[in-house]
Amino acid sequence: MAEILVTGFEPFGGSAINPSGEAARALDGSVVNGDRALGVVLPVSWADSHGELYRAIEDVKPDVILCLGQSGRGFIALERIAINCCEGPDNEGVEGSGRPAICGAPDGLFSQLPLGCLKDAVNRAGIPAEISNSAGTYLCNYVMYGLLHYLREAGSDTLAAGFVHVPSLPRQVVTGKGRGKPSMSQDLINEAVRVMLSTLG
Amino acid sequence: MAEILVTGFEPFGGSAINPSGEAARALDGSVVNGDRALGVVLPVSWADSHGELYRAIEDVKPDVILCLGQSGRGFIALERIAINCCEGPDNEGVEGSGRPAICGAPDGLFSQLPLGCLKDAVNRAGIPAEISNSAGTYLCNYVMYGLLHYLREAGSDTLAAGFVHVPSLPRQVVTGKGRGKPSMSQDLINEAVRVMLSTLG
Amino acid sequence: MAEILVTGFEPFGGSAINPSGEAARALDGSVVNGDRALGVVLPVSWADSHGELYRAIEDVKPDVILCLGQSGRGFIALERIAINCCEGPDNEGVEGSGRPAICGAPDGLFSQLPLGCLKDAVNRAGIPAEISNSAGTYLCNYVMYGLLHYLREAGSDTLAAGFVHVPSLPRQVVTGKGRGKPSMSQDLINEAVRVMLSTLG
Amino acid sequence: MAEILVTGFEPFGGSAINPSGEAARALDGSVVNGDRALGVVLPVSWADSHGELYRAIEDVKPDVILCLGQSGRGFIALERIAINCCEGPDNEGVEGSGRPAICGAPDGLFSQLPLGCLKDAVNRAGIPAEISNSAGTYLCNYVMYGLLHYLREAGSDTLAAGFVHVPSLPRQVVTGKGRGKPSMSQDLINEAVRVMLSTLG
Repeated sequence: MAEILVTGFEPFGGSAINPSGEAARALDGSVVNGDRALGVVLPVSWADSHGELYRAIEDVKPDVILCLGQSGRGFIALERIAINCCEGPDNEGVEGSGRPAICGAPDGLFSQLPLGCLKDAVNRAGIPAEISNSAGTYLCNYVMYGLLHYLREAGSDTLAAGFVHVPSLPRQVVTGKGRGKPSMSQDLINEAVRVMLSTLG
Repeated sequence: MAEILVTGFEPFGGSAINPSGEAARALDGSVVNGDRALGVVLPVSWADSHGELYRAIEDVKPDVILCLGQSGRGFIALERIAINCCEGPDNEGVEGSGRPAICGAPDGLFSQLPLGCLKDAVNRAGIPAEISNSAGTYLCNYVMYGLLHYLREAGSDTLAAGFVHVPSLPRQVVTGKGRGKPSMSQDLINEAVRVMLSTLG
Repeated sequence: MAEILVTGFEPFGGSAINPSGEAARALDGSVVNGDRALGVVLPVSWADSHGELYRAIEDVKPDVILCLGQSGRGFIALERIAINCCEGPDNEGVEGSGRPAICGAPDGLFSQLPLGCLKDAVNRAGIPAEISNSAGTYLCNYVMYGLLHYLREAGSDTLAAGFVHVPSLPRQVVTGKGRGKPSMSQDLINEAVRVMLSTLG
Repeated sequence: MAEILVTGFEPFGGSAINPSGEAARALDGSVVNGDRALGVVLPVSWADSHGELYRAIEDVKPDVILCLGQSGRGFIALERIAINCCEGPDNEGVEGSGRPAICGAPDGLFSQLPLGCLKDAVNRAGIPAEISNSAGTYLCNYVMYGLLHYLREAGSDTLAAGFVHVPSLPRQVVTGKGRGKPSMSQDLINEAVRVMLSTLG
């Protein structure tokens, strides 16, 4: 029996909910394709998100790691690369200021997920998915970069690891900064995550 | 007890499904807020759609008429005006060619729905909705124009009537012409329609 | 020798310039295809814009009237219809509040320009142009509605009259509300206007 | 006196012109801020573009290298990172097929341009510019990757080197695949390039 780690984020930017954190919570404790899933919600914090991710990896020693975050796009976005650059204010008001995610580490790190297979599997389930060439420079990219750097440094046995952006929820695009953006319901997001985990299992 | 008529469209443009027709079907025979709803699926046909709409109105003598169609936008779009212009090929391959919807009739006809109220009600249900200033020049606009012209000519007692565009379904934006467009699940579309009918009832 | 009236708008929304007003100024006093052009800059005012437009029409008795306004789109947008609805605050802070442009007047009024011919002519000059089905509900739509209503009421001999949206200027999309929007240089906008006037002459 | 190398691309994708190649041609032989500029047009070819770029670098031994390519965006896009992945068919019909640009080389390589300074300088000239986190996976990214890898391997003395996407020309967005996309006139593109070179000189 394999171990699966799914992470999402807490809400940020004034929103009361984050569909990536909700997906991690929904998966937590469930069995996908015979494998046990642990769901963890990470803080939107330059200081703490890497530490909490690494602690979960050390506790679980997962075979599969799928990190999730919220985007403004209408499809499941399978991120190809994380970059060594941090921008924007986290939930504690700390600015990324263009600093590297990890000093002296490579400029970019490729996902360790079979992106084309995952895209096809999600699409076959009737859910829009695309491979994306940029995870941005905010906390999503930071956690993806930290994940991939940690696994390389650890010489880890993890079989598959990477980051996927999920759309905002319908209620998040009614007013405020999200208004007018595309969205996806939580049910469909959770289904897409389950399809990806089954494909990786 | 009031009578409600909800129309949607059959699939078009190579798609196997149309969420507006599915919503009309899902509502058919149900009771919303104590009112009886009839759901009708109209053909994507310059020749036949007006006739089938008028027949349904004469049969049901509805107090509320909500016509639905499919758009490429990510929100429920409450259409403000229908215009007297037809463009694009219908399901029989007949071109609109810029002809008027109804010869000698006004250039534009305003919706007879309380657009602001409906937008607020749908938004309160956590579903994105906006007032739209153009229903395009295809069959959606044509049915909206025919509806509003018929009611004016008939000196009708109908209390509320108009047209609402709903998003494409997630499975419709996986490949083909819809790829990359925003979408909304059928459940949420149907809920938005129910909220609008309750508001009008 | 025919008379041509070209109108544009003064700046609004915090901008220091309006490419539609600049185009009207650039055309003013010039001869296009043997016809004399008068350029007028209208105020962004619910109270005064109709009056100033009508005064210019009565002074010039133009054969061709081309009203211009600024949009957030990247192409020359040939507006098909003006609608009888006013929204948003003008330069004096007066709100449109959804009031009709002209009480008791029709819901919509079609342009009196040969839209397809103008689109083709502008495109042949290597400048992107499209027919648009909505001029919005702000001052642009209001002036277009006023223009078309006036000509119908006056039983006017004007041969061609309508409204065209032009893109923002590059400098207007560097920061602020326009940031990230498409743009077009003033030279190209002026050339597009000259091509349209030549086509109408 | 410093030496400047500016590269652009030949037309591709069925277009008759490429504004990046035109900008390189326009700069060729000119003196910018006291520095001599050489302009080179690279082929849209997986097989030949790196070789032609490296030959030009060896000939000129430039202090500044600015590689340009055409995008579908409306602003000057200062690319932050090139990635080791090739997709899409070149002008000879050869597919990138997801292969690495250079086998065994890093996943990503950061630009060696002062992106923030260049953005500010172009913006001060009234031209929209943004830092971009993805140069895609086509020939633009490939040339950027090859450039940055070459300079690292060569232990080069080049002071500044990187890649910038320029918008399509207005005539390229009238019909075909570009239709509806934003554009920028060649004059403005050339001015932006001159501003960037002056800033780097």
